[in-house]
Amino acid sequence: MIDLYTWSTPNGRKVSIALEEFGLPYTVHAVNIGKDEQFEPEFLAISPNNKIPVIVDRDNNRSLMESGAILVYLADTFDRFWGKDRYLTLEWLMLQMASVGPMLGQTHHFLKFNPGKAPYAEKRYAAETKRLYGVLNKRLGETEYLAGSYSIADMATWPWIARYEWHGIDFPSYPHLLRWYKAIAARPAVQQGFDVPSTGAEIPLPAS
Amino acid sequence: MIDLYTWSTPNGRKVSIALEEFGLPYTVHAVNIGKDEQFEPEFLAISPNNKIPVIVDRDNNRSLMESGAILVYLADTFDRFWGKDRYLTLEWLMLQMASVGPMLGQTHHFLKFNPGKAPYAEKRYAAETKRLYGVLNKRLGETEYLAGSYSIADMATWPWIARYEWHGIDFPSYPHLLRWYKAIAARPAVQQGFDVPSTGAEIPLPAS
Repeated sequence: MIDLYTWSTPNGRKVSIALEEFGLPYTVHAVNIGKDEQFEPEFLAISPNNKIPVIVDRDNNRSLMESGAILVYLADTFDRFWGKDRYLTLEWLMLQMASVGPMLGQTHHFLKFNPGKAPYAEKRYAAETKRLYGVLNKRLGETEYLAGSYSIADMATWPWIARYEWHGIDFPSYPHLLRWYKAIAARPAVQQGFDVPSTGAEIPLPAS
Repeated sequence: MIDLYTWSTPNGRKVSIALEEFGLPYTVHAVNIGKDEQFEPEFLAISPNNKIPVIVDRDNNRSLMESGAILVYLADTFDRFWGKDRYLTLEWLMLQMASVGPMLGQTHHFLKFNPGKAPYAEKRYAAETKRLYGVLNKRLGETEYLAGSYSIADMATWPWIARYEWHGIDFPSYPHLLRWYKAIAARPAVQQGFDVPSTGAEIPLPAS
């Protein structure tokens, strides 16, 4: 049995979606970051960086932090969702971990939650967001999924794009990314994993 | 034989240090990001995100982007530098990829290269830098290296800390991190890999 410590954020959703895709039973422990629960000592013991998500795999007596490490652990353990190739998947997973997540996270901070506080930074992250949408759109014009077939790289990237309404972009002008976004949004496991911890959250879908 | 496309940045140095640590012969191709050479079409073909480093392993006919993916590929291929444990190493490698690198990169942008343009952002990243130094210092008070024994997680993190002079921190107040920094700085492979492409760069060392 797996214990999942998470919250309804893109990084949290990566792992709840993955657990649904792998078909693994898990117990959800909500860590309300709005109430600073990630700073409580018992959580720090399993998450030295004070961040969700964390899993504890009771069968293997292993605790794991960092969504990227958790996804690789699951894909290794169950030998699934490695796309066309292990290292192709790792390339796009790392690109998500190093660029898509951290940079869109800054976009959320400056454009969504703190508008007006740093116009220079807003401009910087708005431009970087557009650049990254362009990188992903170009890639998905070449292959159906980031690593050929559906993989943990898609599971890592999709929940960040599911915040497209905060990104100040015109989604239809990235048609390959939009095609990919809708295809993944239609997966039952993604729909199930999106609303964890359960709050009734629904996947946003562009009209066009 | 491995071709390394790189520049004298923390992300570039991760891989030149690793190639030295693994004892692999490689040919350096300098991609001068000061001259925007990362945007040339032939480089984009192997680096869809227009970033260094990239390796091309001619023996296996494989091109790899993203420093984190390259480090995992090398550690898998040669079954070395997995620290005490594969997933412990991946946790700290992912923490570097997702937090240490991207956030210190923002610190470099705002505090070192664009001071005065966004005081709110400077304050944000200065605080995040101190927080991350604290996370690493705490960890290295518990274990000799990030994943127990020396691993690719250390190779990924160390080149970012080697820019400590840009981080506005008091290094001696993080004694465990400083002990680790100096121990790694003393490794011949690290000294060799630090100055790639060769410019005569020397590893900075605090006086105390």
